[in-house]
Amino acid sequence: MTARQMKLGAFLWATGHHIAAWRHPKAHVTAGIDIDHYIQLARTAEAAKFDMVFCEDAAGLREANIGIASQTSRSIGFEPISLLSALAVQTSRIGLVSTASTSYNEPYGLARTFLSLDHLSGGRAGWNLVTSASPIEAANFGATGLKPHADRYERAREFAEVVTGLWHGKASGHNGQSFSVRDPLDLPRSPQGAPVMVQAGASDVGRDLAARTADVVFTAAQTFEEAKAFYDDLKGRLPAYGREPDDIKIMPGVAPVVAETEAEAREKYEELQELIPDDVGVALLSSYLSISDLWRYPIDGPLPELPESEGMKSRQALVIEQSRRDGLSIRQLARHFAGARGHWRIVGTAAQVADELQARFEGGAADGFNVMPSYFPGELDAFATLVVPELQRRGLFRTEYQGRTLRDHLGLKRPV
Amino acid sequence: MTARQMKLGAFLWATGHHIAAWRHPKAHVTAGIDIDHYIQLARTAEAAKFDMVFCEDAAGLREANIGIASQTSRSIGFEPISLLSALAVQTSRIGLVSTASTSYNEPYGLARTFLSLDHLSGGRAGWNLVTSASPIEAANFGATGLKPHADRYERAREFAEVVTGLWHGKASGHNGQSFSVRDPLDLPRSPQGAPVMVQAGASDVGRDLAARTADVVFTAAQTFEEAKAFYDDLKGRLPAYGREPDDIKIMPGVAPVVAETEAEAREKYEELQELIPDDVGVALLSSYLSISDLWRYPIDGPLPELPESEGMKSRQALVIEQSRRDGLSIRQLARHFAGARGHWRIVGTAAQVADELQARFEGGAADGFNVMPSYFPGELDAFATLVVPELQRRGLFRTEYQGRTLRDHLGLKRPV
Repeated sequence: MTARQMKLGAFLWATGHHIAAWRHPKAHVTAGIDIDHYIQLARTAEAAKFDMVFCEDAAGLREANIGIASQTSRSIGFEPISLLSALAVQTSRIGLVSTASTSYNEPYGLARTFLSLDHLSGGRAGWNLVTSASPIEAANFGATGLKPHADRYERAREFAEVVTGLWHGKASGHNGQSFSVRDPLDLPRSPQGAPVMVQAGASDVGRDLAARTADVVFTAAQTFEEAKAFYDDLKGRLPAYGREPDDIKIMPGVAPVVAETEAEAREKYEELQELIPDDVGVALLSSYLSISDLWRYPIDGPLPELPESEGMKSRQALVIEQSRRDGLSIRQLARHFAGARGHWRIVGTAAQVADELQARFEGGAADGFNVMPSYFPGELDAFATLVVPELQRRGLFRTEYQGRTLRDHLGLKRPV
Repeated sequence: MTARQMKLGAFLWATGHHIAAWRHPKAHVTAGIDIDHYIQLARTAEAAKFDMVFCEDAAGLREANIGIASQTSRSIGFEPISLLSALAVQTSRIGLVSTASTSYNEPYGLARTFLSLDHLSGGRAGWNLVTSASPIEAANFGATGLKPHADRYERAREFAEVVTGLWHGKASGHNGQSFSVRDPLDLPRSPQGAPVMVQAGASDVGRDLAARTADVVFTAAQTFEEAKAFYDDLKGRLPAYGREPDDIKIMPGVAPVVAETEAEAREKYEELQELIPDDVGVALLSSYLSISDLWRYPIDGPLPELPESEGMKSRQALVIEQSRRDGLSIRQLARHFAGARGHWRIVGTAAQVADELQARFEGGAADGFNVMPSYFPGELDAFATLVVPELQRRGLFRTEYQGRTLRDHLGLKRPV
């Protein structure tokens, strides 16, 4: 490979990433439990030479209000390890990344499961480490509330250390603050050295954990400036851990709506936006802000002053920033963030979408992107058949896989 | 279906069930991480109309001594949920049962994972509940020793109650001694009503838990009398829980060595037995007896008096009983139990094996059997091509699947 090329992940999510995808006339409403649907998506992404498919996850429901939860595009769906294990034997090259929580698992079991998926797939597995910021999950695991942000990250740091130690076949046991583990795993070394480590924490402590342990960072950024600032900050943290800029691939989320013409793309987008019920939009915005009473405020008025949160600090900051910058009302913010779940939205032709991706990639704000199609399979097909060939024509994306493992695709060093 | 027919499970285990299988000239030594190997086994079992494949499991190594562990037939292997999820999309009818521990998991996560496998497979999943009796596992999950037997079973009872509650879609939360869970799962009801519950605990408290919650009981019994006594005892406990005898299928393990002639079968068996190293045999016997210093006693002398165990009480009793009955030395006991891991061994022709199975089935000592081939794939092939047709000729086993789910195959009621 000569020129630097971008990395692409296909974010899987039941019916689609747009919050109202399930109301779209082309929606596959029970997609979340249709394995043939997921096999089709993984094969489409593999044929388009994506680096990986990526499963977001939470242990359980996403919304405290079950009425609201049932009105979003992922009210039901497979648990991701079982899903990706099934996809492993229905694909041959594409990477398989799943989210799993450091709060509701034990490191020995998690290390074993991901290394098993890695062997099943011939070295294509990745773990997206999350600390689980939702009190909804906590309530299903015996906790009466969420642990403080700093405690979650301290546990996560030790958890990651134990897991990578097990993957790297370190013989000695671990005796730490939260965990003690005596034996090695009952599996040999990974075909790619170790599964790929992915992280998405964007707070200060989250960025430090990523700089210390992650191979890939998934992030949300609306503007070029936000993306660039995050990119430079994170890459700047690497030398402190003896790492080089290329050791981490930063891949923000992008929610494209693409069509043959710009007018068609806009029409598709507006059609989806109009399907968002206000109560669902406000509920999702509330959960991003980690507050429960947003519905009390006038929907056409401004965002109220918010208390310090123990939830997703970085998401909260993003919403507040956008609210101030554009003077948006609660309803406008809700629609804006609900549609793409806080991620970067591009609406246009293949050339327009490719222009935007190229600008962030070449401008040093991203090493690649996690693509979040509005609804499946239609919008993944549109990206694969319209945008990918455009990126390939520009020399910005591979036309064939060069290696067999996820580390090969991502151009990551093999751990020693 | 008119006459009562037996149920058959195919016990999967890397290279094979015989402890020295890995030393056999026909052994596939890296079978434990060869997904194509497992796909072949599952398809063979499905073509022979087995009810299910069954994965034993422990969270990690089986032997404290890594030197000994590496000299057994399952020193490495896939984690079973990832394995069975892959097999789910490579088969269409056969049941998929995995072991998972109530000591090292949380009920919300486990219920979600098994229900996900159940949806992936169209209603073919089963959970074999174990409380994890090995201090080796405990050492990898932050514990300094094994919890007392009664405490493990009390946690297991509550764990099973939470899991079945979640599977049955009970709306209200659970607030108990060990667990609190607020929400339902993010998956709809199982295609078979609920995944099948399997158990193997054979102590008094283990039998009560099985009588209360299990659909299938896996057990070890050397003689007809032992098997019959266990069968009658367990079925006798059902009325106390408002259940009928047919609500539980009792399926002991059986380790057949079958060939065209009895002489060939004996020769195959002796060849395997001679491959057992004494130190491995004694180590396995020690772990059955939950003691660590058996190697201190003369190998050709009798079993010493043993202290009360917090490990697998029922296994310990079985070994002591056999030792007294047949006056066996430690070496003889080690070979006897090591070869088939304490399960019932039958060596002979297809007709002889079928005779023995028929006698226990018709004598009211079993509803079916979990078949444990000595090495894979050869000995599963031998059972499928020699014994299954013989059982079918006798009307004792199905010639075609009648339904699509594991509950259908097992003739179990669909939970309401």
